[in-house]
Amino acid sequence: MGIIVQKFGGTSVATAEKIHRAAKKVVAAKQAGHKVVVVVSAMGHTTDELIALAKNVWGTAAGQPPKREMDQLLATGEQVTIALIAMALAAQGHEAISFTGGQIGLITDAFHSKARIQALDTKKIVNELDKGKIVIVAGFQGVTESGDVTTLGRGGSNASLVALGAVLKADVCENFTDVDGIYTADPRIVPDARLIKEISYDEMMELSSVGASVLQTRAVEFAKKYNVPIHVRNSQHDGPGTMITAETKAMEHIVVSGCALKKDLTRVTLKHVPDQPGVVAQIFSVVGEANIVVDDIIQNTMEDGTANVSFTVEHGDVADLKIVVDKKLKELGGGSAIYDANLAKVSVVGVGMKQSTGVATKMFGALAREKVNIQNISTSEIRISCIIAKADAEKALKAVHAAFDLGKA
Amino acid sequence: MGIIVQKFGGTSVATAEKIHRAAKKVVAAKQAGHKVVVVVSAMGHTTDELIALAKNVWGTAAGQPPKREMDQLLATGEQVTIALIAMALAAQGHEAISFTGGQIGLITDAFHSKARIQALDTKKIVNELDKGKIVIVAGFQGVTESGDVTTLGRGGSNASLVALGAVLKADVCENFTDVDGIYTADPRIVPDARLIKEISYDEMMELSSVGASVLQTRAVEFAKKYNVPIHVRNSQHDGPGTMITAETKAMEHIVVSGCALKKDLTRVTLKHVPDQPGVVAQIFSVVGEANIVVDDIIQNTMEDGTANVSFTVEHGDVADLKIVVDKKLKELGGGSAIYDANLAKVSVVGVGMKQSTGVATKMFGALAREKVNIQNISTSEIRISCIIAKADAEKALKAVHAAFDLGKA
Repeated sequence: MGIIVQKFGGTSVATAEKIHRAAKKVVAAKQAGHKVVVVVSAMGHTTDELIALAKNVWGTAAGQPPKREMDQLLATGEQVTIALIAMALAAQGHEAISFTGGQIGLITDAFHSKARIQALDTKKIVNELDKGKIVIVAGFQGVTESGDVTTLGRGGSNASLVALGAVLKADVCENFTDVDGIYTADPRIVPDARLIKEISYDEMMELSSVGASVLQTRAVEFAKKYNVPIHVRNSQHDGPGTMITAETKAMEHIVVSGCALKKDLTRVTLKHVPDQPGVVAQIFSVVGEANIVVDDIIQNTMEDGTANVSFTVEHGDVADLKIVVDKKLKELGGGSAIYDANLAKVSVVGVGMKQSTGVATKMFGALAREKVNIQNISTSEIRISCIIAKADAEKALKAVHAAFDLGKA
Repeated sequence: MGIIVQKFGGTSVATAEKIHRAAKKVVAAKQAGHKVVVVVSAMGHTTDELIALAKNVWGTAAGQPPKREMDQLLATGEQVTIALIAMALAAQGHEAISFTGGQIGLITDAFHSKARIQALDTKKIVNELDKGKIVIVAGFQGVTESGDVTTLGRGGSNASLVALGAVLKADVCENFTDVDGIYTADPRIVPDARLIKEISYDEMMELSSVGASVLQTRAVEFAKKYNVPIHVRNSQHDGPGTMITAETKAMEHIVVSGCALKKDLTRVTLKHVPDQPGVVAQIFSVVGEANIVVDDIIQNTMEDGTANVSFTVEHGDVADLKIVVDKKLKELGGGSAIYDANLAKVSVVGVGMKQSTGVATKMFGALAREKVNIQNISTSEIRISCIIAKADAEKALKAVHAAFDLGKA
């Protein structure tokens, strides 16, 4: 009688019919003898609609709506779904009980809009499971110690899924979504992309960080830490899906497991920053405090004794970034910021890379043959990424996927 | 620097534009030197839309969706509004902070869908008011001791308004709505109905209990207990509104203050119930436990040693009533229930009635002239009500309003 934690994403609960289909997957797991905890996202485009509502109210006022209030607003999306899933299960004859993040004591830091989970009390959940009930938990949300509602950022429901799997010592976290699993590349761009049956936590983390959108890096990192396998499955039909687990010996023979594309990159160039020790550290420190992830950092010293620093961020972080960067440059008494939103990043990932050579050569060759100019290169032990022009993005992904024969099993 | 509690109903916050108009009323009160607490309902038809969503998920399953989950669902409506009002105030340059019922510790009993307020902690609210912030509270909702979300029933936002007014010892509760105040009769039915400037708690309670829909009896009862005046005002423009206060000497000279109509009445007749001592008490005891208000009770003893008991309830309570009545009749081993949904009740209310005679005669005469058949009569010290056919309802209200010259100041 192990515990299974299942998660249904927004598209899997978008209508009453889909909610019932999700409920049937839940019932099947329960009837197979498991204790079942279900994590759900907001229905369909609810979150976007709530954001549009907020923008409408905010109107032409300067800045952004207060983030605390934005979280208070957005958290209602998942609260609607948990109640409806519980009702669907009741309608199908199964006892269920729903909880918001706050109700199960999912405590986060106070970083509104991208809070991190700090603690999670299992008492209430275990108590209801022991009564034979199915427990439904609102994903994507928590509360601070003082009870303010927080959200975990886009895709934060996966963080909720894995956190629940970890604290409940679940046998598996089933991530039901609208795709069949993890592919060797985005199949909407690369038609011969192949479903990956099994992938290591590390590879998945790298793929997520460079554009594979099914799972967030943070969620996989957490799953690795607590060694909870994540099974990515399609909520609309049965299929093998992709199992994300600890690295096995067999995985080492696969040099490149998959490739990915990130199309929403902005390069920020800070020009004529005073070139003194600690200045760059100060800039990245305030950017980090604002919870903005930067990548591809390049620094050049100019002849006039100032420095140019450039780095990439996701489009979604640009508004926040501008505020902290402008403030910091003012304090430093110099420098200006230039933003270029026309960038993309193509990457290849594979644990076998650690023991293999020639991966970079093969990748750069494939891009060169397609006349794709590489603007910057970054690597990890199991990943190579190239910054390219956004216009070349899809062409580049196809070329790399073909070069490594990823379409063949 | 007294405290004002303002409430905006659903129609007053139905759009972004209306939310800003409400926010301006809030700002005006703050700029006049008051500390302001704002209670809001769900936007426009949100609650109805959420109920429709639940019905859609529930489908053809027997019974009703679980009430705990229904409350979990419906409470999101007000949570959306509090966040948006706080954003509108921020956009207008004023610091505001929103709280759900749970976040301010508004504790209720566990009667889901019609819970009653048991305790309300002022600490968080006072703390934020002292910082100069405007405090926004979700109406209509609370939590049980164990943290389950509850709702206070339709119109429960007014209960929240008055409860906040009472515990915060507010100077006044301002109830902003889509009408100008309390009228001598529903102006949609009686065109010459007149706005009442001042009315006593007792009269308002009686009017509410017999159909005046602006305020619920419970809310007024609470306001009377803590002597908090309620000012009913139109949120879309400035006007005198209606002040609901403790009874004054001047009020005694008004024999009839207003009249009202209730069109959503069902008469339940329990036939052939065993006529033994305590049986009727048992029936009304289970009905009361289900939080259903009954009125116009009539009991007849039959020749066969059984009794017929009839009473009226609101249409909205019929589904719940059927469940408890059927169960009880089964236990009692006899009787059947008949439901007649085609009834209405017309009433006149006035504190002057205590010292005056001839009110009943005048009312019955007016109805007789219009050939309206009176099926049952009930009275209190300051009210006379007649049960009539639903088809006669509007005609009856007009006749009574005219008979007491209520259109003239």
